[in-house]
Amino acid sequence: MRYKITLAYTGTHFSGWQVQPGQRTVQGSLEESLSRICAQPVRVQAAGRTDAGVHALGQVVHCDLPKKRAAVPWQRALNSMLPADMTVTGVEAVDQKFHARSSALAKAYTYTLCLRPDFVLPQRRPFVWWTGPLDQDKMMAGAGILTGKTDFCSFMNVGTPVRSTVRDLFAISFARGIFAEELVCTFWADGFLKQMVRNLVAGLVAVGRGRLSRKELLEILESRDRGAAPATAPASGLCLQEVRY
Amino acid sequence: MRYKITLAYTGTHFSGWQVQPGQRTVQGSLEESLSRICAQPVRVQAAGRTDAGVHALGQVVHCDLPKKRAAVPWQRALNSMLPADMTVTGVEAVDQKFHARSSALAKAYTYTLCLRPDFVLPQRRPFVWWTGPLDQDKMMAGAGILTGKTDFCSFMNVGTPVRSTVRDLFAISFARGIFAEELVCTFWADGFLKQMVRNLVAGLVAVGRGRLSRKELLEILESRDRGAAPATAPASGLCLQEVRY
Repeated sequence: MRYKITLAYTGTHFSGWQVQPGQRTVQGSLEESLSRICAQPVRVQAAGRTDAGVHALGQVVHCDLPKKRAAVPWQRALNSMLPADMTVTGVEAVDQKFHARSSALAKAYTYTLCLRPDFVLPQRRPFVWWTGPLDQDKMMAGAGILTGKTDFCSFMNVGTPVRSTVRDLFAISFARGIFAEELVCTFWADGFLKQMVRNLVAGLVAVGRGRLSRKELLEILESRDRGAAPATAPASGLCLQEVRY
Repeated sequence: MRYKITLAYTGTHFSGWQVQPGQRTVQGSLEESLSRICAQPVRVQAAGRTDAGVHALGQVVHCDLPKKRAAVPWQRALNSMLPADMTVTGVEAVDQKFHARSSALAKAYTYTLCLRPDFVLPQRRPFVWWTGPLDQDKMMAGAGILTGKTDFCSFMNVGTPVRSTVRDLFAISFARGIFAEELVCTFWADGFLKQMVRNLVAGLVAVGRGRLSRKELLEILESRDRGAAPATAPASGLCLQEVRY
């Protein structure tokens, strides 16, 4: 029986999503708990393989669980076994054709910036990139250049083979965070390349700091050259917010 | 020269405020940084000695720093040395008579409860007590019994000698937290006994769960017997919010 499991986690103390020998990973922790309950190895497939330090509020995975375990109260059973920095927020039985990654129609990532000039609260440090003040008008104008269906090769880090580097970036929206002087940038797209959001944020922050003009940002996008774009923004600000099917 | 330093910290990985041999404490970390900058031992005095796991957004300390260091940009210098889970949010020179604890007119602690029935987000777990649903009307009525100038002996844990166990609890207010299904209880008083807020919260939560009536809560208060009151609430929900002078 196929299940869709929705997960929240604080990425700070995980070596990212994907199982790696000798490392504490989100996938590893989830598979370990599922395998223990099922008394057989269980593998899960995620909508997005988040990097070390990246958080999630709405990560989605699918997995096939044995029919003889159909009566297990999965959410409660998993949450009683999982480490404190990850939680199952929902479990539902789905059609056998459901695939967490390839069935996804759209994904949203948020990236939170702390604009305070003087300090960042320790309570917020693991969840933000502390940039200090930024020109938000310039950033919004820059975001307009980046949205649309285009080749995001300049904003992709190498490491994961992909068939195409074209993605449809539906929208970049900006909102005040729930904590003082935080700016939350939300990215909706049909899919994201490796570290694409962090690379786009690095570009937008450079624009917001006045170090990069809108014209230069457009030139970077059109160059299809990763070397032309600013260095990847920190993992801490990033959160996989939602996956739509 | 006397200074007033305001501090924020995440208490999760500290063994509380007070210096203890071989333990990682907030006071110890602050004194170490100050002593290093001053090249001489510096001691600080806090408004409230928070326990292990208790957070602060507005802890206040005073200390005397050598005149020859008057040009040091204290906030920046300290924040460059302090660990990531504590931050100096303000520094000001004050009168020699200023005393962080005894000059305080009022202090506010917040205690955050997570009312979700199904799960607590890992991002929020270090900052809340996950109680599940509570009857907030009953809790507000209970809070009315606890406020006022009275002997809070029933809600004090032993360990710190005090002259009097009478405190003036100005107000207990309830507000929705910034995260979904969180209830923030704010306690304003002229001072607090050891673990008083956590013991009051334990009483209010018992009322909110229907395990304790308002009448029984009043009896506990009047009994002046610590043994009569519910066990202390977890440290994680507590935060030293503000100290007024």
